[in-house]
Amino acid sequence: MIVRPHLHWFRLLFVWRGSVLPYIVSRLALVLAVSVLSVLGRHWWMSAHAESALSIPPFTLMGIALAIFLGFRNTVSYDRYWEARKQWGALLIGARSLTREIASFAPDEVALQRRVARTLAAFAFALKHQLRGTDPRADLACRLDPAVVDRVCAARFVPSALLLCLAQDFAAARRAGSLTDLQLQSMDTNLNLLTEASGACERIANTPIPYTYRVLMNRTVMVYCLLLPVGLANAIGWLTVLVGPFIAYTFLALDVIGEQIEEPFGNEPNDLALAAMCHGIELSICELVGETPRSSLPEVVDYVMV
Amino acid sequence: MIVRPHLHWFRLLFVWRGSVLPYIVSRLALVLAVSVLSVLGRHWWMSAHAESALSIPPFTLMGIALAIFLGFRNTVSYDRYWEARKQWGALLIGARSLTREIASFAPDEVALQRRVARTLAAFAFALKHQLRGTDPRADLACRLDPAVVDRVCAARFVPSALLLCLAQDFAAARRAGSLTDLQLQSMDTNLNLLTEASGACERIANTPIPYTYRVLMNRTVMVYCLLLPVGLANAIGWLTVLVGPFIAYTFLALDVIGEQIEEPFGNEPNDLALAAMCHGIELSICELVGETPRSSLPEVVDYVMV
Amino acid sequence: MIVRPHLHWFRLLFVWRGSVLPYIVSRLALVLAVSVLSVLGRHWWMSAHAESALSIPPFTLMGIALAIFLGFRNTVSYDRYWEARKQWGALLIGARSLTREIASFAPDEVALQRRVARTLAAFAFALKHQLRGTDPRADLACRLDPAVVDRVCAARFVPSALLLCLAQDFAAARRAGSLTDLQLQSMDTNLNLLTEASGACERIANTPIPYTYRVLMNRTVMVYCLLLPVGLANAIGWLTVLVGPFIAYTFLALDVIGEQIEEPFGNEPNDLALAAMCHGIELSICELVGETPRSSLPEVVDYVMV
Amino acid sequence: MIVRPHLHWFRLLFVWRGSVLPYIVSRLALVLAVSVLSVLGRHWWMSAHAESALSIPPFTLMGIALAIFLGFRNTVSYDRYWEARKQWGALLIGARSLTREIASFAPDEVALQRRVARTLAAFAFALKHQLRGTDPRADLACRLDPAVVDRVCAARFVPSALLLCLAQDFAAARRAGSLTDLQLQSMDTNLNLLTEASGACERIANTPIPYTYRVLMNRTVMVYCLLLPVGLANAIGWLTVLVGPFIAYTFLALDVIGEQIEEPFGNEPNDLALAAMCHGIELSICELVGETPRSSLPEVVDYVMV
Amino acid sequence: MIVRPHLHWFRLLFVWRGSVLPYIVSRLALVLAVSVLSVLGRHWWMSAHAESALSIPPFTLMGIALAIFLGFRNTVSYDRYWEARKQWGALLIGARSLTREIASFAPDEVALQRRVARTLAAFAFALKHQLRGTDPRADLACRLDPAVVDRVCAARFVPSALLLCLAQDFAAARRAGSLTDLQLQSMDTNLNLLTEASGACERIANTPIPYTYRVLMNRTVMVYCLLLPVGLANAIGWLTVLVGPFIAYTFLALDVIGEQIEEPFGNEPNDLALAAMCHGIELSICELVGETPRSSLPEVVDYVMV
Repeated sequence: MIVRPHLHWFRLLFVWRGSVLPYIVSRLALVLAVSVLSVLGRHWWMSAHAESALSIPPFTLMGIALAIFLGFRNTVSYDRYWEARKQWGALLIGARSLTREIASFAPDEVALQRRVARTLAAFAFALKHQLRGTDPRADLACRLDPAVVDRVCAARFVPSALLLCLAQDFAAARRAGSLTDLQLQSMDTNLNLLTEASGACERIANTPIPYTYRVLMNRTVMVYCLLLPVGLANAIGWLTVLVGPFIAYTFLALDVIGEQIEEPFGNEPNDLALAAMCHGIELSICELVGETPRSSLPEVVDYVMV
Repeated sequence: MIVRPHLHWFRLLFVWRGSVLPYIVSRLALVLAVSVLSVLGRHWWMSAHAESALSIPPFTLMGIALAIFLGFRNTVSYDRYWEARKQWGALLIGARSLTREIASFAPDEVALQRRVARTLAAFAFALKHQLRGTDPRADLACRLDPAVVDRVCAARFVPSALLLCLAQDFAAARRAGSLTDLQLQSMDTNLNLLTEASGACERIANTPIPYTYRVLMNRTVMVYCLLLPVGLANAIGWLTVLVGPFIAYTFLALDVIGEQIEEPFGNEPNDLALAAMCHGIELSICELVGETPRSSLPEVVDYVMV
Repeated sequence: MIVRPHLHWFRLLFVWRGSVLPYIVSRLALVLAVSVLSVLGRHWWMSAHAESALSIPPFTLMGIALAIFLGFRNTVSYDRYWEARKQWGALLIGARSLTREIASFAPDEVALQRRVARTLAAFAFALKHQLRGTDPRADLACRLDPAVVDRVCAARFVPSALLLCLAQDFAAARRAGSLTDLQLQSMDTNLNLLTEASGACERIANTPIPYTYRVLMNRTVMVYCLLLPVGLANAIGWLTVLVGPFIAYTFLALDVIGEQIEEPFGNEPNDLALAAMCHGIELSICELVGETPRSSLPEVVDYVMV
Repeated sequence: MIVRPHLHWFRLLFVWRGSVLPYIVSRLALVLAVSVLSVLGRHWWMSAHAESALSIPPFTLMGIALAIFLGFRNTVSYDRYWEARKQWGALLIGARSLTREIASFAPDEVALQRRVARTLAAFAFALKHQLRGTDPRADLACRLDPAVVDRVCAARFVPSALLLCLAQDFAAARRAGSLTDLQLQSMDTNLNLLTEASGACERIANTPIPYTYRVLMNRTVMVYCLLLPVGLANAIGWLTVLVGPFIAYTFLALDVIGEQIEEPFGNEPNDLALAAMCHGIELSICELVGETPRSSLPEVVDYVMV
Repeated sequence: MIVRPHLHWFRLLFVWRGSVLPYIVSRLALVLAVSVLSVLGRHWWMSAHAESALSIPPFTLMGIALAIFLGFRNTVSYDRYWEARKQWGALLIGARSLTREIASFAPDEVALQRRVARTLAAFAFALKHQLRGTDPRADLACRLDPAVVDRVCAARFVPSALLLCLAQDFAAARRAGSLTDLQLQSMDTNLNLLTEASGACERIANTPIPYTYRVLMNRTVMVYCLLLPVGLANAIGWLTVLVGPFIAYTFLALDVIGEQIEEPFGNEPNDLALAAMCHGIELSICELVGETPRSSLPEVVDYVMV
C-alpha cells in the first residue's frame, strides 16, 4: 500500500513514486516513436494515398468503447481488491471477538487466554505467508510451542490447521470445566467466521480474472494506442507528439492499475499491506489479554508499506 | 480456467491460446470480406447514389450504445461467474468448518471423523457431476460404502442425499453420546451452509441470462460489424480492411467472452476448474483428520485446468 | 423462461421466437414510415428551410445519453429478475434444509416427515399462486388434509398460513417428545428463512420500478426513434430506411426486455418458470423422505417454460 | 407510489399524471425562451462575432459527461429507494416470524398472541410516523392499552420503545412459564431484526446524498440546458425550438426523479406507500392469530397511494 | 454533513456554501488564464502552425473516457461513504438491541442497565475519537468510573477495550445469577456485531483508495482542463472564456467531491456527522433505561454538522 501525505494538486502532477509511469514508460516511448513517424510521414502518405487516410472519428468510436470496457475491468479489479481488504477486516473482527470471549468467559485462565491470542496472531501470519507463497515457520516459532509448530507446518493449509488447534484447545477447556457448552458454541461460530475469511482470501488468490479478459484488454488498448497517432497526425500535426502519448498514458495507466490491484495479495506497491495488518491484528488482540506482541510495525520504504 | 504465467505485454499481443480468436475467426473473415467489397465498390456506389452514402457519425452513435449494452452484459456474466466461484468457496469453507467441528467435538471417534471427511469430499464431487451432467458413481465408489453409494445414486439430487447421510450420521453420534445437542446444532448450521452453496450452484446452472438478451446482443453486434466497413470505406479507403476487422474483433470478442463465462460450470477454457477445486477441498479436509485423499490434481492441458 | 438449445450465431440472427420483435413490430413500422417520409420530403424541406435542417450530431448527443439511461434501467430490471430468482433458490434451500432436519432429527416419524415434505411443496405452490394472482386450492388439495386446506385457503396470505401450520406441527412434535428444544430452534430458523424468501417475493411483486421511470423511458425512446430518421435522411439518403429502423430496433428492444423482466413473476416468455421451479422443489424434498411428488414437470410450449 | 394499470405505449406518450412534467415546466419554459431568442438572434450574432459561435461538438462532449454523472446519481438514488423498500420488507418478515413463533410456541396464550400482533402493527405505524415526522398517538391508541400509549409516546424513538415493550412481554411470559429460554432466544433474534430494519430506515431518512452533489448536478444540468439552444441555433435553425426543450426535458426529468426517490419516505407521488405497507403488515399478522386489523387500505387518489 | 433546507432550483444555482467552488477556485483561475491566452494567441498560432491546430474532436474522445473514469471513482468513493454510514447505523442498532436485552432480561438490575447504556455511549464516542485521531478521555470520564477510564485509555484500541468491559460485566452478571447462559449468548452475539461495526470503520479509515488512482485522476483531469481551451479557442473564439472554465468546473468539482467523501470520517463539510450520530445513539439508548444523556446535539455552524 502506498502511504503518502496529502499533496497539493500541483505537486501531485509531478509525482513519480506512486504513479504507474515506471511500468508503462516503454510502451509510451513506442507510442511517441509512432507519433513522430506519423507526423513526419503524413505528407508523403497524403500525396500517395489521399483516399486512405485515418481521421479522428473512427477513434472516437473505438476510444469510448474501450473506455467503457476499461471501466468494467477496473470495477472488477477494484471489487477484488476491496473484498480482499474486507476479508482481512473480518479476520481482525473474528480475532477480536474470540479474544473478548475467552477473556470474559474464562477470566481466570490467563495462560489459556494468552495462548489463544498468540495462536490467533500466528493464524494471521500463516495466512499472509500462504497467500504470498512464503514460509510461515519463523513467524509461528516465536508464538507457539515447538511441538505445535512442527505439527502445523507439516500441513498444506497451515491456517486451517491452526484453527483446528484452537478448536481443540477450546474443547479441552470445556471438558476441564472452564467453558460451558453454550460458550463453546459461541466461540465455534467465530471460528467459522475465521474459516470463512481465510477461505475467501484463498478464493481471491487462486482465481484470477479470466485470462481472456487480460489478453483482450492488453491487445485492444495497445493496438488502439499505436494507431491513434496515425489518425491524429493529419488533423493536428506536430501536436500529435503531445496528445497521442497523453491519451495513451491515460488508457495504459488504467490498464496497469487494474492489473496490479486485481491480485491484491502480492508485493507490488498498490497491493494490500498484509504485514502491517498482521501486526495490527496482533497488537489489538494482545492488549486485550495483557500479552506482548511479537511483531513490530513494518517500516515504510519509498512510501510503500508491505 | 486458463492458467498461464504472466507474460510481457508484447508477447501477450500474439497469444493464440487463451484468446477467443478461434471462436470468432469465421465472423471476422466475413467482416473482412465485406470490408474488401465495400472498398472495391465505393467508387461505383458514390457515382450512382452519392446522396445515400453511409458515413461514420451514425456508427459512432450506435457503437457507443452497443458498447454500453455489451458492458451491461459483461457485468452480468461476470457476476454469475464470480458468484459461482463464491459458492464453491463457501463449499470449501463449510466442509472445513464441519471437519474442524467433528475433529474437536469428538476427538476420539477417528473412524467417524474420516467418514465425514470422505463424505464431504464425495459431496463436492457429486455436485461437480450434477452441474456438468456427468455420472458421479466412480467418484463416490472410491470414498463411500457400497451400500451408501447405491442408495445415494438412486436419487435425482445426489449432493442433497449425501448431506442427509451426514445429518443421519451426526444424529446417530448424538444418540450414541459422542456429540452433545448443542454440538449437533452447530454442525447442523454448517450443513445448512452446504445446502445453500449447492442450491445456489443449481440456480446459476439452471437459469441462464434471459434468452432474449442473447438474441438481441448477437443480432445487433453482428449487423453492426457488417455495416461498419460500408460506413468506413468512403472515409478511410483501404485502411477499412485494417480498422473494420479490428473494431469487429473488440466487439465480437467481448460478446463471446460474455457468453462463455455466463455459464461457469461448463467445460470451456474460461469456465471454473471444478475438478481442481474438488481436489483442493478433499486435500484440505483430509489433512485435518489424517485421511488420505482419493483424488489427485488434474493435469493442465494446453494451459487449461478443468 | 425461454428454453432453447444453443444456436450457431448465424441461425441466431434469424430467430423469431425468443426475440422481442413481435412486441415492437408496430413501433418499428411507424419508424419505417417516418423514414420513408423523411427521405421523400428531404429535397422539398431543404429547398424551403435549408437553415433548419436536422443533422446527425444532436442525435449522437441524445443517443448516448439515452443509451446510458437504458443501461441504468436494464441493470435495475435485471437486478429485480435475479433477486426474484435468488429468493426462489432460497425457498428450495430452506425446504431442503427443513426436510433434512426433520428426517435426521426424528428418523422414526415417517408420517410426520412426509407431511412436512408435502406441506413444504404446498407452500411453494401457494406462493406461486399468490404471486400470479391465481387460485391455490387445487394444488393444496392434492397434498394436504381437507381440513387444513379449508383453514389455510381462508387466509389472505396462504403461504404464511402454511408456515404457521408447519410451526404448529413442529411444536406438537416437541411436546410429544419427538424433537428436542434445540432441534425445534434449528427448524424455527429455517422457517424464518422461508418467511424471508416469501416476503421478499411479495416485495418484488408489489413494488414496481417507479412509474415515472417508465413514462420517461417510453417517451424519450419513442420521440428519439421518430426524430432520428429526419436527422439521417439528409446525410445518408435512402439508407435511412435501413439504418433508422435498425437503431430503433436496438433501443426499443432493450426498453421492452427491461419492461418484461422487471416483473419476473408474470406469464410472459422471459419471466421465471415458477411452475417448473415448484416441481423441482417438490421432487427434491420428496425424494429425501420417500414421498411421491404430486406434480410433474410442465411441458415446454414454443420453447417457453412457465 | 404511483399505481396505474399498464398503458399502451402510445397512450403512455401523453400521460400527464405520473410524469415529472409538472415539476420542471417552469425550467422548460425558460429553455424554450432561450431557444427562441437564440434562433432570432443568430443572424445578428453571426454577422457581429462570426468567430465566436457555439457549435454542437462542445455540447456532445459535455452532454455525455453529464449523462454519465446523472446515471451515477440515479443509481445512488434508486439504491436508497430500493434499500428503504427492502427494510420495510424486512419489517413484514420479522413481524410475521414473531407472530408465527408466539402462535406456535404458546398456542394457548391467545390474549398474549393478539397483544403481540397489535403491538407489532403499532410498531410499523410508529415507524411510519417517525419517518414522516407526524404524530403516532392516534394509530397507537386504537391498538394498545392507554398506559402503554402514554409511556411509549413520551419517548423520542417510539418504535424502539415499542420493541422494549414486546421484549418485556416475552420476558414476563418466560417467567410465567409460557415460553422456554430457547424460545425466548429465538424471538429475541427476531426483535434484533426489527431493530435493524427500523435503524436502517432512520439512517436513510437522516442521511441524504451529500448536499454538494445536489448543488453540482442542479447547476451543471441547468447551465447546460440553457447554453444548448445557443449552440443548436446556428446548426438547426428553428428546429432548435423543438430539439432544445426535448433534450432539456430528458436531463431535467432524470434529475428530478433522482431527487424525488432519493428521499423515499416523503409524501411525493414517487415515494414509498408507507401507509399501505403498514396496513399490509397488520393484515398479514392479524390473520395468523385471529385478530381484527384496525386499519384499512388507504384509498388511491389520482393514481397515488400514500 | 451539510444540512440545508431544500432550495428552489434557481437559488441553488448561486449557492456558495455547500458547493466545492472554494476548493477549486485556484485551478479554475488557471484554466481561465489559459483560456484568455489561447483566444488571444490563436491568430498568431494559426498563421504560424496552421497544420498543428488542436480542434474539438480529440477532446470529445478524451473527455468521455475521463467522464467514465470519474464516474468509476465517484462510485467507489460514494460506496465508501455509504458503507461508513451503514456501519454507524449498525452501531446504533447493536447498541439498541443490547440495551433492550439487558432491560428485558434483567428488569430489576437498574444500576447495571444504566451502566451498560453509559458504556455503550462511551463506546460510540471512543470510536469517533479513534477515527478522527482525537483524545477520548473527556467523553469517557463523564460516563464511566475513573478506574475504568484509566484502564481503558491505556489501550491503543479504546473501543475494543470498552467492549471487553461490557463482556466482563455481563459475565459477572451471569455468575451472580442475573442473566442466564442463553441470555449471555444472545448478548454476546450483539457484542460481535459491535466489534464488526467498529472493525469495519477502522478498515475504511485505514485503507484509502489506492494512491495511484488519485495521482492518475488528478493528473489527467488537470492536463485535460488546461489543454481544452487551446482546442476550443479556434472553434468558438471568445466563448472559450465561458465554456472552458464551465467544463473544467464540472470535472474538477466531481474530482474534489470524490476526494472528500472517500474519507468519510474527517472534518470536511461533506464528511459524516459523527458527533451528531454519537449523540443520537446516546439519546436513543438512554431513554430505554431512564438514564440522562451526557451529550447534547452539536450546533450547526455554517450549515455544517460535525
